[in-house]
Amino acid sequence: MQIGVIGLGRMGGNISRRLMKAEHSCVVFDVNVKPREQLAKEGAAAAGSLEDVVRALESKPRAVWVMLPAGRITEETVERLGKLLEPGDIVVDGGNSFYKDDIRRAKKLAEKRIRYVDCGTSGGVWGIERGYCMMIGGPKDAVDHLDPIFAALAPGRGDIPRTPGRSNGDARAERGYIHAGPSGAGHFVKMVHNGIEYGLMQAYAEGFDILRNKDSKDLPEDERFALNLPDIAEVWRRGSVISSWLLDLTAAALTKDPLLKSFSGYVQDSGEGRWTIEAAIEEAVPADVLSSALYTRFRSRQGHTFAEKVLSAMRLGFGGHIEGSEPIDPEPAPARAAAEKAGR
Amino acid sequence: MQIGVIGLGRMGGNISRRLMKAEHSCVVFDVNVKPREQLAKEGAAAAGSLEDVVRALESKPRAVWVMLPAGRITEETVERLGKLLEPGDIVVDGGNSFYKDDIRRAKKLAEKRIRYVDCGTSGGVWGIERGYCMMIGGPKDAVDHLDPIFAALAPGRGDIPRTPGRSNGDARAERGYIHAGPSGAGHFVKMVHNGIEYGLMQAYAEGFDILRNKDSKDLPEDERFALNLPDIAEVWRRGSVISSWLLDLTAAALTKDPLLKSFSGYVQDSGEGRWTIEAAIEEAVPADVLSSALYTRFRSRQGHTFAEKVLSAMRLGFGGHIEGSEPIDPEPAPARAAAEKAGR
Amino acid sequence: MQIGVIGLGRMGGNISRRLMKAEHSCVVFDVNVKPREQLAKEGAAAAGSLEDVVRALESKPRAVWVMLPAGRITEETVERLGKLLEPGDIVVDGGNSFYKDDIRRAKKLAEKRIRYVDCGTSGGVWGIERGYCMMIGGPKDAVDHLDPIFAALAPGRGDIPRTPGRSNGDARAERGYIHAGPSGAGHFVKMVHNGIEYGLMQAYAEGFDILRNKDSKDLPEDERFALNLPDIAEVWRRGSVISSWLLDLTAAALTKDPLLKSFSGYVQDSGEGRWTIEAAIEEAVPADVLSSALYTRFRSRQGHTFAEKVLSAMRLGFGGHIEGSEPIDPEPAPARAAAEKAGR
Amino acid sequence: MQIGVIGLGRMGGNISRRLMKAEHSCVVFDVNVKPREQLAKEGAAAAGSLEDVVRALESKPRAVWVMLPAGRITEETVERLGKLLEPGDIVVDGGNSFYKDDIRRAKKLAEKRIRYVDCGTSGGVWGIERGYCMMIGGPKDAVDHLDPIFAALAPGRGDIPRTPGRSNGDARAERGYIHAGPSGAGHFVKMVHNGIEYGLMQAYAEGFDILRNKDSKDLPEDERFALNLPDIAEVWRRGSVISSWLLDLTAAALTKDPLLKSFSGYVQDSGEGRWTIEAAIEEAVPADVLSSALYTRFRSRQGHTFAEKVLSAMRLGFGGHIEGSEPIDPEPAPARAAAEKAGR
Repeated sequence: MQIGVIGLGRMGGNISRRLMKAEHSCVVFDVNVKPREQLAKEGAAAAGSLEDVVRALESKPRAVWVMLPAGRITEETVERLGKLLEPGDIVVDGGNSFYKDDIRRAKKLAEKRIRYVDCGTSGGVWGIERGYCMMIGGPKDAVDHLDPIFAALAPGRGDIPRTPGRSNGDARAERGYIHAGPSGAGHFVKMVHNGIEYGLMQAYAEGFDILRNKDSKDLPEDERFALNLPDIAEVWRRGSVISSWLLDLTAAALTKDPLLKSFSGYVQDSGEGRWTIEAAIEEAVPADVLSSALYTRFRSRQGHTFAEKVLSAMRLGFGGHIEGSEPIDPEPAPARAAAEKAGR
Repeated sequence: MQIGVIGLGRMGGNISRRLMKAEHSCVVFDVNVKPREQLAKEGAAAAGSLEDVVRALESKPRAVWVMLPAGRITEETVERLGKLLEPGDIVVDGGNSFYKDDIRRAKKLAEKRIRYVDCGTSGGVWGIERGYCMMIGGPKDAVDHLDPIFAALAPGRGDIPRTPGRSNGDARAERGYIHAGPSGAGHFVKMVHNGIEYGLMQAYAEGFDILRNKDSKDLPEDERFALNLPDIAEVWRRGSVISSWLLDLTAAALTKDPLLKSFSGYVQDSGEGRWTIEAAIEEAVPADVLSSALYTRFRSRQGHTFAEKVLSAMRLGFGGHIEGSEPIDPEPAPARAAAEKAGR
Repeated sequence: MQIGVIGLGRMGGNISRRLMKAEHSCVVFDVNVKPREQLAKEGAAAAGSLEDVVRALESKPRAVWVMLPAGRITEETVERLGKLLEPGDIVVDGGNSFYKDDIRRAKKLAEKRIRYVDCGTSGGVWGIERGYCMMIGGPKDAVDHLDPIFAALAPGRGDIPRTPGRSNGDARAERGYIHAGPSGAGHFVKMVHNGIEYGLMQAYAEGFDILRNKDSKDLPEDERFALNLPDIAEVWRRGSVISSWLLDLTAAALTKDPLLKSFSGYVQDSGEGRWTIEAAIEEAVPADVLSSALYTRFRSRQGHTFAEKVLSAMRLGFGGHIEGSEPIDPEPAPARAAAEKAGR
Repeated sequence: MQIGVIGLGRMGGNISRRLMKAEHSCVVFDVNVKPREQLAKEGAAAAGSLEDVVRALESKPRAVWVMLPAGRITEETVERLGKLLEPGDIVVDGGNSFYKDDIRRAKKLAEKRIRYVDCGTSGGVWGIERGYCMMIGGPKDAVDHLDPIFAALAPGRGDIPRTPGRSNGDARAERGYIHAGPSGAGHFVKMVHNGIEYGLMQAYAEGFDILRNKDSKDLPEDERFALNLPDIAEVWRRGSVISSWLLDLTAAALTKDPLLKSFSGYVQDSGEGRWTIEAAIEEAVPADVLSSALYTRFRSRQGHTFAEKVLSAMRLGFGGHIEGSEPIDPEPAPARAAAEKAGR
């Protein structure tokens, strides 16, 4: 079928490609000329504006997939599409919008009988090859109508073994997409997915940090090990309880750069991790691990927190402690004094 | 080759079976008669005592694999083997011993020139079929001598894709086992593996808890979703960033019992999680996520903590607050008052 | 001066009393007749409705102090006052409103030139005697106009030693109240105050829990201590680094009930703790301790979390582990198996 | 009475002074000549060696107070005293030793009938003036014998209000010291005291960090406040629930340096915080807040953790994300992208 795709960045471009490979036809648009020219070469119909996209969509109801950074730009695009489209048409927000924004937008567009579908899309740069895992919210008729699109983007059954006992669930889940519920449910499930992702990543990260520092000179000599991190990551991929795709990626990174010297350690976060904590708080669900994972990223982007200065100020106040200064090299410098004191 | 196996529980029994399938011969012993009779039927030589095991091992150097719960029983068995074996012989501790115990035992046995190998063994009940992932510490000659044993227990290359760029690491890692370093290094790496496991499990657990409670009556009506957890777990297995073996298991459990009503929520912990935190502290490595994962398990085994009573006592003290009483049903009862107050 | 007080619960009633003791005159109202009759006996003018309160306020600009639970009831009351009052009049929200609600309400009332003051009020049941610590937001002229009210409610300098070096700050701070900034700033500072309160309480609570369980049978005999908690709390009040008012309250509670058997351990939370975390997240400030303190309360109100069941389900999946069942008594039951395994 | 004091640093020197002010006579020793000469001028008998100290102690049983950094130096000193002293004599370890070391040492010295007393001493640089809060472990007869010493060091009742209802506890607690239990109990209680201290400090620190960053340009303009931290700390000292001695110190520090620019934010930890977590783990007591407080300090001493690099490596792996680089100034730089994305 025919679909418009707005936003041709890392995700939108590849989504168009995967759709075209499945014989769907894409009308594409991006504010930058380059990616739309590139996709035109690959078979897409490139449009010069949102209006052009809508005009170029021939069969009705029209469907437009918006694949832009969450926030203002997505908001404005959806709003403008609301003015350009007609009753029955469908807007898909395939980005990482906040699910409460979906609920609001869906209500707004419903006034004009335009159908809004929120689709959380996982897969990153690998999606074009592996397929995208999609979590979809919105009206059933719209989700059903777009089924050929979702089916083309999804990984399909592949050679992943079936879950034992699975028989009466949503068959689409086994092909890599689900209709999670009403408007907002798709992005909500994707949001929690990303929250979990933060927690998983942090668990691996802390573990490798403990392995890495087992060589520390603050430890007794016969308790120091110079561990081979790439080999350890590799062996864990094979038969261990903690094997996963994230571990596969870690093994690949460590193989290339065993001490990860090419990374500064400055880590961004991207909205979903924050919203997951807010959702946990609204539901009164304890989320210690997901929160800590988020806070580690906040911390990673600062030289020092103000909190740490407050600690030093108190320590000076009650104990006359003068703290050491900055570590010059980026290598960990565990407290020698503490270790020595502990008699170890 | 021939090997003694001491301890025929869930792990030791299956290890013997996997070894025999690979044409190794096992002399087995357990304090319980039943499992050793069972293994005798399956082709093992069953011994009636540790002494009998040692006597039955014909080729030298002898090798004995100890597969017992960490702690006193392993300690005593290794000690007794130290008296029964001869210089050059090898003791493998395949259980989950604390790595500092390994270091101590290895030194002790080295006085008699008996070689001690610590082998962290991951794979659980699935190991017999999938193979065991092994992290090995100890003297190189002993580890090399036992290579046929490790190779038989390991999963082998299978159809797991190679890590891109991997060429000059330990080739054994790709078959599912590594020689991690000197005595203790094997169990140390396995310990951190289990610490990571706790963190990963907790990340998934918190995420599913947030999904589960999205139906809470404390939320505004249009922000409530009754989500299908088995379908969500299923779809995440396919193309998503958080796919893993632990997620596969979760999907299977949810498929069978979508609300997990057959589980009380009382969660054991087993030593390695604790030791991982102690290692982090010794190295001055922040381990927020791994610690929280452990504490959740501590908390799960108590009706209420004393800490919580202290909180209530203070609240009564400064605010005259009388707390509610216990929730009668095991379902979460998020604070209605708080939600109402928040004007939501 | 004359002031209306709406809401005569624990806080509003005592605030009226403290104001009258300082020779201010109060026009009081509550939906319940009893507290307003009681205050009438103590010298207040009791009104039968919001309208009556406004009518009874003679001098202009009128001032009305709203002391109600945050959320709907405060919202509606402020809205109704907005209709009853005239340009120049002042509404004080002395409750625990969310600061973003203040910002919105202040803007709304400003359209009618009614001035809105948000006042975070700390002191609890002790405020009538010790005085209330107040953090105030809103237009300077309104805050200045109400200075006699704030001065009467505040503790005043008392015998608390001056902070060394303090000379050019806001003199009101030393008497127990501050004008923190524009609308919302008062409740924001009070919110963070409560967030800190959660963290402090949790720190003491964990500490006492560790002391309490030092008697555990899972510990080696010569490392068990049966500690006297009331004596410990008492001694810490005297010359130690951790002396505080919260510790005073804890000492009092432990003196009365050394094992706190009269408390169930079910702990409410009240909005500010949640909002503090949301503020931290918006600012990208790591708030591990404040978050954990909140989550402990969430957890305390549940028999078991769904998360814990997910953990058990995974453990059954990979290891065949059957978890124990519920502890029947509310006393902590640390994992015997784990302790034994750890060889301790 | 007469007592030897070994170690004349910040703590040992002032302890000698406070004892002499109470008419006790001190025989003092330090490896550095300067502090012992200084104390000699102030009335102490300065000894040139441990042997001299023991020789100079006339009345029996002799008592020697060891006030040295925990670890090797204390260990060796106690050992040497064990050789120099006679049955009935008393060694006091007034430092911050690990309580399991106390248990071991006490057993060792008991073989020679030398009595060992472990005394956790709180008060820091303020102790000489405010008195020291002491938590004491060891044999009753020795603790009773030293009562005049403890009484002189303790703050005494002073003007701290009595805890309501207190009547039958240890009367010494109200004067600022307790006999907490057998050997090790004193340092155990002091250790938990310091663990709590870490948690309290961190709670304040996070709160002030949230206040400090409320001015962030990533927030909507009408939700930004430029808060006056010294005034806020000051007002919280007066009538608020979170008033404490640590807050007094924070107020003093902020008064002098409102943005704490004189502090780098590099924060040491000193053994007790670590041991408290280990104790919690041994007892299976959840200690989320105390752990996080410790980890914050670990983190503060590193440019970046290896964990953070692992996170970045994964993010590059699955999403092609290139992280930003280091913030050049020490001021927090919350993720603009995230904030913008969140549409706030």
